Amino acid sequence: MVHETKIRVRYSETDRMGYVYYGHYAQYFEVARTEMLRSLGLTYKQLEDDGILLPVISMDIKYKNPAIYDDLLTIKTTLKKNPLIKIQFTYEVFNQKNELINIGNTTLVFVDAKTRKPRKAPQNFIDSLNNNGSTVET
Amino acid sequence: MVHETKIRVRYSETDRMGYVYYGHYAQYFEVARTEMLRSLGLTYKQLEDDGILLPVISMDIKYKNPAIYDDLLTIKTTLKKNPLIKIQFTYEVFNQKNELINIGNTTLVFVDAKTRKPRKAPQNFIDSLNNNGSTVET
Amino acid sequence: MVHETKIRVRYSETDRMGYVYYGHYAQYFEVARTEMLRSLGLTYKQLEDDGILLPVISMDIKYKNPAIYDDLLTIKTTLKKNPLIKIQFTYEVFNQKNELINIGNTTLVFVDAKTRKPRKAPQNFIDSLNNNGSTVET
Amino acid sequence: MVHETKIRVRYSETDRMGYVYYGHYAQYFEVARTEMLRSLGLTYKQLEDDGILLPVISMDIKYKNPAIYDDLLTIKTTLKKNPLIKIQFTYEVFNQKNELINIGNTTLVFVDAKTRKPRKAPQNFIDSLNNNGSTVET
Repeated sequence: MVHETKIRVRYSETDRMGYVYYGHYAQYFEVARTEMLRSLGLTYKQLEDDGILLPVISMDIKYKNPAIYDDLLTIKTTLKKNPLIKIQFTYEVFNQKNELINIGNTTLVFVDAKTRKPRKAPQNFIDSLNNNGSTVET
Repeated sequence: MVHETKIRVRYSETDRMGYVYYGHYAQYFEVARTEMLRSLGLTYKQLEDDGILLPVISMDIKYKNPAIYDDLLTIKTTLKKNPLIKIQFTYEVFNQKNELINIGNTTLVFVDAKTRKPRKAPQNFIDSLNNNGSTVET
Repeated sequence: MVHETKIRVRYSETDRMGYVYYGHYAQYFEVARTEMLRSLGLTYKQLEDDGILLPVISMDIKYKNPAIYDDLLTIKTTLKKNPLIKIQFTYEVFNQKNELINIGNTTLVFVDAKTRKPRKAPQNFIDSLNNNGSTVET
Repeated sequence: MVHETKIRVRYSETDRMGYVYYGHYAQYFEVARTEMLRSLGLTYKQLEDDGILLPVISMDIKYKNPAIYDDLLTIKTTLKKNPLIKIQFTYEVFNQKNELINIGNTTLVFVDAKTRKPRKAPQNFIDSLNNNGSTVET
């Protein structure tokens, strides 16, 4: 399952090297996975309103080329497989010249908002992913 | 009542002009007023744990000179008068050469965390301010 | 001259109160004025590439209501009058329920990138603003 | 070679989950490695003023426990071995209860500011690291 999101680089996201600060890609990844879920009819906000949190438990990024101010980036987000307790996303960031900016991975875990303990992905979440998958396959 | 806080400019806080991004001073002001309160024996965290929030309802800044990467800034924070429902702070930011970087003001309002309605400053908060004041005067 | 920009609130922009952190509106304002200029055929990036910087010299914000995670904000940006050395923008931020979130103002100054001294707005900048104005009026 | 830096969590760095936003640790790591270098008599600013940039080419983080508002974090930074073209740092973040918050790694590359091509670490940089090492050993 793959989804594309476009993000325009803000001035505030550049640093004095003239590049997007290396830490800000975590925010871009967050926007990318949120928009991927929204495209499947799932909003992360609804998930939280239903008492489920999705904190990130690991992230890695390999930086290939700098992004600069006003670049219109495309983030290609891939959901590897169906989530159980954890959910994994891979991100590839490209600029408007189709140059690869970086590649990243995040793993998130479903957590009960009250107990703050891990739990299974909610059934409607899994159903939405599966329905989408079958739509694509048909 | 005046308090001084030192903040080192982080690389992430610069922009491609080489200056501290103009929006980041709001964070510096937040650190400055938090440390002023801490110096009076009041922690903003305790206030929130006691069910009181302090959102900002107005801010203004006049930018005089840019701050740059690795500057060691001094923020001189002034609490204008005893708070009732609102509390006002003034900030003067200087760099290590004692150049004035900017001057800002913020007004915050005491809010009940449950009802999200304005309320009076808690008595222990006012007492701490007054005790500190009288200590200074004596 | 009025322009509207839409911005989706990112998770990273919320704080533990559940609100958009008060300092982040400076970034939203930056996006709003950049997109206003782009709609007139002017890119702020081109301006910098031509050797002209536009640092902010004053900002003020009155916060009316909190914005929360995933809100789709509309920022109504107004350019008060033709710029000479300074340029002034006013911003009104609304959420998707058309509630007023806040009102802000920024003043920016045209600066020569080499000398870092104030200078007049470049002629093509003023022309673009005027051409746009007359198009609207006709 | 190990160095410890303390960082107080700012309100702006929390998110609506009440945790430090997962992307902000990149900033903490930057502060930690900068202060480690400063303790060796090396400032990253001086390095840039000498025409050398140090962009990050990879980062990974494993998140173990959340940090929350007002936590006083200790970042233990380890410089693995002498840099040649790349320099690697490992970070362990602890809160004031000595709970492990996360573990991260970054690799940075020495780059010529003009050509933006990789280059060797400058000799005075390597000398400072070595002198410090021998001082510790003696």
